[in-house]
Amino acid sequence: MTALRGWVECAPNFSEGRDAHVLAALRRAIESAGVKLLDRTADPDHHRSVFTFAGSLPAVENAVLRAAETAVEKIDLASHRGVHPRIGALDVVPLIPLGDTPFDACVAGARRIARRLWSQLEIPVYLYGRAARSPERRALEYIRKLGFEKLRLSADSPGRRPDVGGPLPHPTAGAACVGARGFLVAFNVELRTADIAAAKRIAGKIRESSGGLPAVKALGLRLATRGTVQVSMNVVDIDRTPLHRAVEAVCAEAAALGVEVVRGELIGLLPRKAAEQTTAQALRLDALTPNMVIEDRLGLD
Amino acid sequence: MTALRGWVECAPNFSEGRDAHVLAALRRAIESAGVKLLDRTADPDHHRSVFTFAGSLPAVENAVLRAAETAVEKIDLASHRGVHPRIGALDVVPLIPLGDTPFDACVAGARRIARRLWSQLEIPVYLYGRAARSPERRALEYIRKLGFEKLRLSADSPGRRPDVGGPLPHPTAGAACVGARGFLVAFNVELRTADIAAAKRIAGKIRESSGGLPAVKALGLRLATRGTVQVSMNVVDIDRTPLHRAVEAVCAEAAALGVEVVRGELIGLLPRKAAEQTTAQALRLDALTPNMVIEDRLGLD
Repeated sequence: MTALRGWVECAPNFSEGRDAHVLAALRRAIESAGVKLLDRTADPDHHRSVFTFAGSLPAVENAVLRAAETAVEKIDLASHRGVHPRIGALDVVPLIPLGDTPFDACVAGARRIARRLWSQLEIPVYLYGRAARSPERRALEYIRKLGFEKLRLSADSPGRRPDVGGPLPHPTAGAACVGARGFLVAFNVELRTADIAAAKRIAGKIRESSGGLPAVKALGLRLATRGTVQVSMNVVDIDRTPLHRAVEAVCAEAAALGVEVVRGELIGLLPRKAAEQTTAQALRLDALTPNMVIEDRLGLD
Repeated sequence: MTALRGWVECAPNFSEGRDAHVLAALRRAIESAGVKLLDRTADPDHHRSVFTFAGSLPAVENAVLRAAETAVEKIDLASHRGVHPRIGALDVVPLIPLGDTPFDACVAGARRIARRLWSQLEIPVYLYGRAARSPERRALEYIRKLGFEKLRLSADSPGRRPDVGGPLPHPTAGAACVGARGFLVAFNVELRTADIAAAKRIAGKIRESSGGLPAVKALGLRLATRGTVQVSMNVVDIDRTPLHRAVEAVCAEAAALGVEVVRGELIGLLPRKAAEQTTAQALRLDALTPNMVIEDRLGLD
């Protein structure tokens, strides 16, 4: 991992999942900063997109600022409707250390991004994860569940003031959550039903906050364009709950409700360990390691 | 794969799975020929070992000959008892093309190895797979199920004559099967029972030859040292039956008999595609590709 000294991954979420022109503009803004774009996922029902990229911390910070500028210009939250909770045009900005990069570097980077978002674009920022200024702000949910509309009316109230700038959100671009965290896997499971209650019930059963699986967050969301619903998950620590266990749990709960699973959907990227855990479990192996795979042993791509 | 132009994989099976000195001597013999040793698996109940290595065709041919010389010197089939069928001290020698290497090169290599085994060591050879001289000799089973003891009494009978040398096997080293084939996955599933009938019944249900899964070969074998039994499989084409389907089928048949699965065991190496198929299926993804895995996208080992 020495080749990645000082590198950081960043996976900003934007409140735009439909307009190809806006998505292309966001992509150009990100790539113009000299980072390596690894993935882009957009969903019309969520009306949301995630760009995953990596680079040196200064390049990553610049990429976030350039993309934020584009988001302010192109996205108007006042007319934005989607099924995924959001408070901003540039909604969430996680910095994830790669290789030997220390968490402290990502925390400092998140705070620099926060100051620049406010000073250059008038976007107030909530710091979260390792960059949070108080324990109750470590998790995103405290502020995110409000949504842009409620936040506009209450950002000045106690406990809801932004950490940087504000208190009121930007009139069209809202506010942003910026933080540092470890790698997480974002994964959705689509169900062959239009019954949103089924998705919400399954999400309620599997998420840690209601007594489900450790390190699993889950929401039930409606996918209007597909006429189905999905369980949308974050697995924030695959050592506590491997991804395949979370997927199995959704499938088992769905089966118990008599609901068929359409497919799984990865948002962003998978750490190799998650794939290895999954293969080992399915094949009843104690572990799968790269030295068991012929292409890895021969040093092939 | 251009880095592997002309390279061949070889996975010879030896009738020695217990004596560490003999295994070390076989290893030295193979490595002295300048090939890259990728894996070695030995099983005391099978009393059998598999060395997996890769290299240029001339180096691979030399490695087989040097290991055969060691096997003739150290292994006496007259006193060898194991649960796995075998006809020789060096029992089976498959050549598998890597990268752009054509099958014809492996066929020619197998035939050269056959001539050298006979002329230098007096080991008669049955050619199999793509190197077979007649369609009925493509599959190994026709000769292998006899075992060394029966073969000694009948190798001169019609239909059992070796393709090269013989007809009688070497008095202590027997005969060898040498061939060219595509990649196969050798995989065992251990069952928590001493009832060999259960393993044989499951093997009979899942193998292609008795109406089971396409491209799957299976045997039920006793593991005396562990007090258990296993279903020992070869999946010869993971596009026809993915490995995880074969493992699932064994688990399902075991469950139907009320027998618990102890573990899966890979013999040799796994093609990356088998791991990707398994992960995709368990996560309900259409496919898993390297561009979905962060370490692969960043070009990390």
